[in-house]
Amino acid sequence: MRSQYLPGTLVAVAVALASTVQALWPIPTSYQDGKIGVEIKRSDFMIKSNVTSSSVINAAIERYQYLIEHEYFESPYDFNESTLKTSGMIYSLQVDVQSAQDVLDLETDESYTLEVPLEGKAVISAKTPFGAVRGLESFSQLIVSNTGRKIIKNAPIKIVDSPKFQHRGILLDTSRNFYHIDSILRTLDAMAYNKLNTLHWYAISPFSWPIESKVHPEMNEKGAYSLDMRYSYDDVKKVINYAKNRAIRVMPEFDMPGNTFIVGEAHPEIMSCLNKQPNWDKFAAEPPSGQLNIADPRAVTFAFDILSEYSRLFVDLGFHMGGGSLNLECWRSDPTIELYVRDHPGESVESLMVGWYTQMIGKIGDLGKIPHLREEAVLNFNLTAKNTTILQAWVSEDSVSKIVDKGYRVIASPWNRYYLDCGHGSWLLNFEGSSWCDPFKGWQQIYSYNPLTNITDPEKQKLVLGGEVALWSAQSDETTVDRYLWPRASAFAEIMWSGSTDPVTNTTRDLARVAPRLTEHRFRMVARGIMAEPIAPLWCVRHPETCMHAVAA
Amino acid sequence: MRSQYLPGTLVAVAVALASTVQALWPIPTSYQDGKIGVEIKRSDFMIKSNVTSSSVINAAIERYQYLIEHEYFESPYDFNESTLKTSGMIYSLQVDVQSAQDVLDLETDESYTLEVPLEGKAVISAKTPFGAVRGLESFSQLIVSNTGRKIIKNAPIKIVDSPKFQHRGILLDTSRNFYHIDSILRTLDAMAYNKLNTLHWYAISPFSWPIESKVHPEMNEKGAYSLDMRYSYDDVKKVINYAKNRAIRVMPEFDMPGNTFIVGEAHPEIMSCLNKQPNWDKFAAEPPSGQLNIADPRAVTFAFDILSEYSRLFVDLGFHMGGGSLNLECWRSDPTIELYVRDHPGESVESLMVGWYTQMIGKIGDLGKIPHLREEAVLNFNLTAKNTTILQAWVSEDSVSKIVDKGYRVIASPWNRYYLDCGHGSWLLNFEGSSWCDPFKGWQQIYSYNPLTNITDPEKQKLVLGGEVALWSAQSDETTVDRYLWPRASAFAEIMWSGSTDPVTNTTRDLARVAPRLTEHRFRMVARGIMAEPIAPLWCVRHPETCMHAVAA
Repeated sequence: MRSQYLPGTLVAVAVALASTVQALWPIPTSYQDGKIGVEIKRSDFMIKSNVTSSSVINAAIERYQYLIEHEYFESPYDFNESTLKTSGMIYSLQVDVQSAQDVLDLETDESYTLEVPLEGKAVISAKTPFGAVRGLESFSQLIVSNTGRKIIKNAPIKIVDSPKFQHRGILLDTSRNFYHIDSILRTLDAMAYNKLNTLHWYAISPFSWPIESKVHPEMNEKGAYSLDMRYSYDDVKKVINYAKNRAIRVMPEFDMPGNTFIVGEAHPEIMSCLNKQPNWDKFAAEPPSGQLNIADPRAVTFAFDILSEYSRLFVDLGFHMGGGSLNLECWRSDPTIELYVRDHPGESVESLMVGWYTQMIGKIGDLGKIPHLREEAVLNFNLTAKNTTILQAWVSEDSVSKIVDKGYRVIASPWNRYYLDCGHGSWLLNFEGSSWCDPFKGWQQIYSYNPLTNITDPEKQKLVLGGEVALWSAQSDETTVDRYLWPRASAFAEIMWSGSTDPVTNTTRDLARVAPRLTEHRFRMVARGIMAEPIAPLWCVRHPETCMHAVAA
Repeated sequence: MRSQYLPGTLVAVAVALASTVQALWPIPTSYQDGKIGVEIKRSDFMIKSNVTSSSVINAAIERYQYLIEHEYFESPYDFNESTLKTSGMIYSLQVDVQSAQDVLDLETDESYTLEVPLEGKAVISAKTPFGAVRGLESFSQLIVSNTGRKIIKNAPIKIVDSPKFQHRGILLDTSRNFYHIDSILRTLDAMAYNKLNTLHWYAISPFSWPIESKVHPEMNEKGAYSLDMRYSYDDVKKVINYAKNRAIRVMPEFDMPGNTFIVGEAHPEIMSCLNKQPNWDKFAAEPPSGQLNIADPRAVTFAFDILSEYSRLFVDLGFHMGGGSLNLECWRSDPTIELYVRDHPGESVESLMVGWYTQMIGKIGDLGKIPHLREEAVLNFNLTAKNTTILQAWVSEDSVSKIVDKGYRVIASPWNRYYLDCGHGSWLLNFEGSSWCDPFKGWQQIYSYNPLTNITDPEKQKLVLGGEVALWSAQSDETTVDRYLWPRASAFAEIMWSGSTDPVTNTTRDLARVAPRLTEHRFRMVARGIMAEPIAPLWCVRHPETCMHAVAA
């Protein structure tokens, strides 16, 4: 009845969208389907693998066996269907894995193939357990509920799939406000539903130090919001293990030497410009001000202690040492630094800073880790870092190409596309203005950004490892995390996994066609307990052609 | 330990904020407290009333008895306290009500007094059951949990309280996207926690018609998103009754003659400019376009049918007939209207529109209801409405004074302060731009708006009945409602109940002092199951003096 408004060409689009492709998010590299509905045998549907020794595989099979049995998801596009027709029956899913080896790093192979026949056994083939995890997710997304049955609408199906980028992450700040472990685990679930593979855990900010430290227990004692609002070693290990079972790395960040006001709660003696008020803006990007005193050997020792301890606690190969939003005036105004520079000809605040970074990058390397660092030290202050260092671009979209031009690997996080907390008013208590990073980043802006923009050399393109969306938490905590992240991080996830170009048409994917697929995925996430927000009236996702930007007559 | 950063005067502020006033939101008109902690007897704490025949009182007593017994709320400001000292014990709460009469309208008396002694029985006195409901809410907010006990920190307490404005509402659009009844009921709970008293139920939009109609069942059949996504008569009655028990009116809106695209799903014959594409912007503020044909007697009959039916279903005295975002070009381009105007000398699209409104206002009056109408017809098109008509100001803050200058009563809903959905990107599927009503309205902007601005004449001030914040739902549904509304609607609620002026200092309330109180209230709402969002890092609400807008040196 509602199709009366569909112009001819759009009918074709709508029909195409109604195929099962729209059930898959992110969209696979290669996808073929048929027209036959098949039913999933419910009472004893079995998932089996040729590998029985992999804890990752075993956990994934258990998880998806449960999900397929319990999930109840009716596609919003089947709203005026009663019983969808099926003929064949799928009895089981075979997961073939070449190797049980389960190292999760930038080289990990996440590719898989998935075949769903008209009858009998579906098959996933993967090189690694992590590829199998991705294939299981795709299989689960093919299934919809219909009149008491679980069905796949368009068999036979053949998928050949692998990610475009190897680093597909979310930065989650659990320090400005606290997140109970459950919401971190739920976020990992949602990341797996979107084939994201890196949780960048920003757990130490100017505002709190919630991570347990055995070397510096005073940090957690004085820096956590309360005894309840902290992450013990066991909590961290639980998160890491939970993430690994979902093919997700957990990379910690100790942001320094700026953004370290909280260190002053226990160690004011190693701090510069601690809590300058009320003109904190001369010394920091946000209050309260405070940077480690880069001329003080005790600050170096403290930083080394933390790097060493947390490098052991977090098993991931990556270690992020922060480095954003530095303020040189903070150090210039510190009498001890002023004195140090006067006493050491040739030294300056800039050279001290470069020296600091060089030391920290060296230390992280000595600990067997890959240093990660925000862009400023290299792009603004001429730090020459070891070329294994991975830089996080955030200041502008142009930073990505500037970084690869210098030969470094890069993770794209431009604030104007990927900072998900922006556009939510100011958290300064007496300020009626907007946030520094206004406006809100809609899913369309996120989806339309291609990290490879202006990088044509294939060798340089390889240096772009991927990207991270960021949820800074001045105005977020466990009550809001789902909605800040989803489905906007899903929009990001598809670009990361599938790239910006539709391989069939060889053109940039069309937002109008993406939107209904994104909405279906959003409803599936909601069905799985992720409180993802709606992106438009349901009318519009059912009738996309009626909800487009106006075209001048 | 953290107080090392507190300058002298701010210590005094922080100490003042630590008193129990901060536990009360909105802040009472008059409040006196002491310094003695008292305990609430838990095993058999009793709430009793002199009136036993009032269903509102009985329901409220049952509700707060349960809440006081089961709520577990530790103040975030007691984080470094272990056992708070108490001496006396409160055994019961007496609720004295002058009259069991329970009519809820603009004249309803919501005043109450509350006294908490050092020992024995607390007493609420109120003129009406609805005043008692407000007093019970205040009493419940005095109580915090501490080491297994429920205590009131600063007895003895005496509160004398009544609202500044009589219309304190939330407009909730349950049509652009659907909200299950549970989230509407939860919203009513939260409104009661904030002493709001009007749910303006915007249930019919261009996108769906979820409300059952017995007179025009085709509207619900063709206009609801699905059979599951509709409100039956029983659902509506359940909402109204639930609201009444919380001293909340439920006013329906049938928005017309614009914003009625959905009517065309069943009755295209009474519509003008139905779904003009792709240049819909010539005909409507948002797609899909469509306005009732104001020259067609069948459209009048249809509107009368709906007004009559829903006037009976919704018992409230107020009936909102919409009237926003009209587009004259829609009608001018309609051949039937063109013909009508040609055949009727003296008539024009403008005169037809004024005639339409006059008829509808008359009809609503005949049905015994008070017509509510958006401002445009009166301010832009010289409609002279019956002076009982209540106008909703939304186009600008100035509209409020313009409306009272014309002698009408007004509800303030300026979009630039009170539209809570704004600043969230565009819902147009292929548009990367921002929302029309950018930016996001932070709690500070909402709190800083006084509806009485530029209205000095006390008689004209009386015409300002209050205000409404609005949640339009193109990008909201039950997954997001809590966070869109709270605590920003709480900021609004305090201005509505308590006014913008601190009666002690006779100055505008200071955001810096308001913020910690708002945060404590936000945590209490979270403890009660309302997913209100955080407004700042917890550090900042504990140390407000460190998180202020920078002052240039």
